[in-house]
Amino acid sequence: MIHILKVKELLDGKIVGNEDLNIEGPCSIKDGKKGCISYIKESKYLKYLENTNASVVIVDDSITIPLNLKQTIIKVKNASIAFISYLNLYSKHQNSDLLNIGSNPQIPDSTYLGENVIINNDVKISNDCEIHSNVYIGEKCIIGEGTIIRPNVTIHKNTIIGKNCKIKSNSVIGSSGFGLYSDSNGVHHHIPHVGNVIIEDDVMIGSSCTIDRGTINSTIIGKGTKFDNQVHVGHNVYIGMNCIVCAQVGIGGSTKIYDNVILGGQSGIIDNLHIYENAIIGPKSFIVKNVDKGSYVSGNPAINHKDNIKKNIILSKLPELYKKLSK
Amino acid sequence: MIHILKVKELLDGKIVGNEDLNIEGPCSIKDGKKGCISYIKESKYLKYLENTNASVVIVDDSITIPLNLKQTIIKVKNASIAFISYLNLYSKHQNSDLLNIGSNPQIPDSTYLGENVIINNDVKISNDCEIHSNVYIGEKCIIGEGTIIRPNVTIHKNTIIGKNCKIKSNSVIGSSGFGLYSDSNGVHHHIPHVGNVIIEDDVMIGSSCTIDRGTINSTIIGKGTKFDNQVHVGHNVYIGMNCIVCAQVGIGGSTKIYDNVILGGQSGIIDNLHIYENAIIGPKSFIVKNVDKGSYVSGNPAINHKDNIKKNIILSKLPELYKKLSK
Amino acid sequence: MIHILKVKELLDGKIVGNEDLNIEGPCSIKDGKKGCISYIKESKYLKYLENTNASVVIVDDSITIPLNLKQTIIKVKNASIAFISYLNLYSKHQNSDLLNIGSNPQIPDSTYLGENVIINNDVKISNDCEIHSNVYIGEKCIIGEGTIIRPNVTIHKNTIIGKNCKIKSNSVIGSSGFGLYSDSNGVHHHIPHVGNVIIEDDVMIGSSCTIDRGTINSTIIGKGTKFDNQVHVGHNVYIGMNCIVCAQVGIGGSTKIYDNVILGGQSGIIDNLHIYENAIIGPKSFIVKNVDKGSYVSGNPAINHKDNIKKNIILSKLPELYKKLSK
Repeated sequence: MIHILKVKELLDGKIVGNEDLNIEGPCSIKDGKKGCISYIKESKYLKYLENTNASVVIVDDSITIPLNLKQTIIKVKNASIAFISYLNLYSKHQNSDLLNIGSNPQIPDSTYLGENVIINNDVKISNDCEIHSNVYIGEKCIIGEGTIIRPNVTIHKNTIIGKNCKIKSNSVIGSSGFGLYSDSNGVHHHIPHVGNVIIEDDVMIGSSCTIDRGTINSTIIGKGTKFDNQVHVGHNVYIGMNCIVCAQVGIGGSTKIYDNVILGGQSGIIDNLHIYENAIIGPKSFIVKNVDKGSYVSGNPAINHKDNIKKNIILSKLPELYKKLSK
Repeated sequence: MIHILKVKELLDGKIVGNEDLNIEGPCSIKDGKKGCISYIKESKYLKYLENTNASVVIVDDSITIPLNLKQTIIKVKNASIAFISYLNLYSKHQNSDLLNIGSNPQIPDSTYLGENVIINNDVKISNDCEIHSNVYIGEKCIIGEGTIIRPNVTIHKNTIIGKNCKIKSNSVIGSSGFGLYSDSNGVHHHIPHVGNVIIEDDVMIGSSCTIDRGTINSTIIGKGTKFDNQVHVGHNVYIGMNCIVCAQVGIGGSTKIYDNVILGGQSGIIDNLHIYENAIIGPKSFIVKNVDKGSYVSGNPAINHKDNIKKNIILSKLPELYKKLSK
Repeated sequence: MIHILKVKELLDGKIVGNEDLNIEGPCSIKDGKKGCISYIKESKYLKYLENTNASVVIVDDSITIPLNLKQTIIKVKNASIAFISYLNLYSKHQNSDLLNIGSNPQIPDSTYLGENVIINNDVKISNDCEIHSNVYIGEKCIIGEGTIIRPNVTIHKNTIIGKNCKIKSNSVIGSSGFGLYSDSNGVHHHIPHVGNVIIEDDVMIGSSCTIDRGTINSTIIGKGTKFDNQVHVGHNVYIGMNCIVCAQVGIGGSTKIYDNVILGGQSGIIDNLHIYENAIIGPKSFIVKNVDKGSYVSGNPAINHKDNIKKNIILSKLPELYKKLSK
């Protein structure tokens, strides 16, 4: 909880509305959350202002606000920069990590603990887990029954891992995502990430994978999904149940992958896409648009797999064809 | 050693043949190994049954077995699932890792040991090695003379590393591979991996590489081969002598790469291929079929390198050509 | 400082010139450095010999040297192999790492130190840094004010990091690069790397990135540049200010990237290129030649982005076109 006057002071803003309330945390503008704070990034998001459940909204000075809003407004010079400042403040308030180590952990006797394991405050581990050597677990993580964490894995705060999962060596779960705000001088500001990662039951994460936490909400890996090594998952990604993700795949931020999808090795998916149920993506494909349910795509850029094969056959005949046509 | 009756009980199967024998470990059906157990995955593997050296073979109930087999058969509902169960049992029997740490190690005085190094049971280190800080070495690993392991490397059990090798920071050697068995409900079961990794003399592995161990046998990296960073090697891969593997290359499971091959950066090779001696694979190529001895291929999918260059030249003229043809 | 007679003995060479001087370290032949030693790799580098600032130069026996050189020459059978031997000797002289740990460090009271942190000799940390658990910092590293190093990061010796940087979990900074010398028997010798990595102020490095140190000089990441996860940067690379480098990008050795460049996810750039100011490289692109200031390229191989879109549209019509033409 941070008092609105403290936030106002930090942001050098003006309050329009209730000056005596405590802000619980950040939320998105679209849905919002009672007691929480959001912001209007661009004028196209103004439409969400009247109906958001957020209690406080940061807006640019230059924007004309509708009368009789139920939300409290903080007017600032630059709402994006101001929200980053708020997130940094919020993030530090959360951060007992820096104060002390290991208070109030729940570690059952059935846990196998390797050497040099670091477990931060308020971590909860269920029965029959293996936490191998040199693993780091940030505060408030929850780890389900029978889950195995291999050596040298880093798990950042607030991560939730289900039952019977395997997280293989040197993977990083829940690091902050690649969200940047670029100001008018071309300087890039890293947006603090206060969300988390949720890994459901029976998931396997390969060696040296990186799964970023959500900006405000969660990055989610669904039940039974299996990853090979060196997979990268951006912030706010959702992956459904029983997917297969092969080695060196990269998934851009906020992309949504539905149940039973197969992603071939080294394939790449840009941000904000939908890959629907049972789709198959061939190895080394480059996905720049949504992929339909049950379809099989491949190539760079990816198209229907059969068409891609045909295309490649014709391309192999192209030199000959070109010669003929040139005549 | 696990007695066959214990295995039968675990698998809920019926024994046809010798009911009083101890099973040493798993083996493949094709060659087999005396005293060991294998299984028939699909009916096309039945042809190996009569001549395999395996002493015990798990088969589906539904399969008709030839009479007078010298091998003992265990009949089960689903041979694939049953073999996974056996491997899990075998794997736990092997796993003294969880009982205690560091008994019976062989660490000569000439070894440089960094801080927080974890060395498990029965590890053998030869003279003049450097094992840097935060390295984890699983049980029964063997490390040859003069080899250097950089900080934060994870080396899993049974790995064998030759003389004068360099394993650079944060690499993972010998984690379990990406072998899945998908049942009729679409649930993917991870197949336990009881093989290992063998790295021969004078090999260099870059930073943050991942090399998976064999399912039953070994993943092998040949003498003098050099890896750049972030290379991924799947289970059961064989790489020959003096190969050059550039950064971010991915090699699919069971692929065989012969001597003196060069793999360009970010290239990807699917599983079960053969890349013959002295072949060169251009950077960012995608290899979907065998590559001949001494040939130079590139592109996605990869073709002869000269043809690929020609193809790209013609492609650059395509818009113009298309315009003319449309007329 | 190593006396020239010791070097001569090691290299089994002959000195032409001053036999009584101490060699400070290695340098490149093109510019050279007073008191230092370089070598002539191939005859095309002979043109630099007369004007180099290097005090000592190793050359092949077979080369005819100009008379009245101010530099001292060491004649050897194979200059490349000899220089590798010298670098190994120099590298060992530098390497107090193996003698003891943690003497003479500068760690202010304001530093947050996690558990199991390893800090080698002569490391200098400025105020208000966070060095999280299981981090390894090699000797003589310098870390600027307010910089945060997340868990399980490896930072090799002589790395210089500026103010307010973030180095995320499991990244490796300053490991030796992928420089090989292949002798006439096809054996590849790893060239020792005695340069370092310099990271300027306000840089963010994602999780599981690998940034190799320079062969003799520095690999440089400019002020304000931000990396996503699993990025690979080869030795001797220069990256300018405020660049954005997305996930799983690979940058080949000695490539120079100027200010404000954007590199899309999974793109790859071969070695020794120039990517000029404000250029944009699309995701999964393959860059094989220099990219002009302000241009936007994409594809494999990359061409002008608009042309690439056009090309892909025409390619999608190719089967139809081919059918018509075949008639």
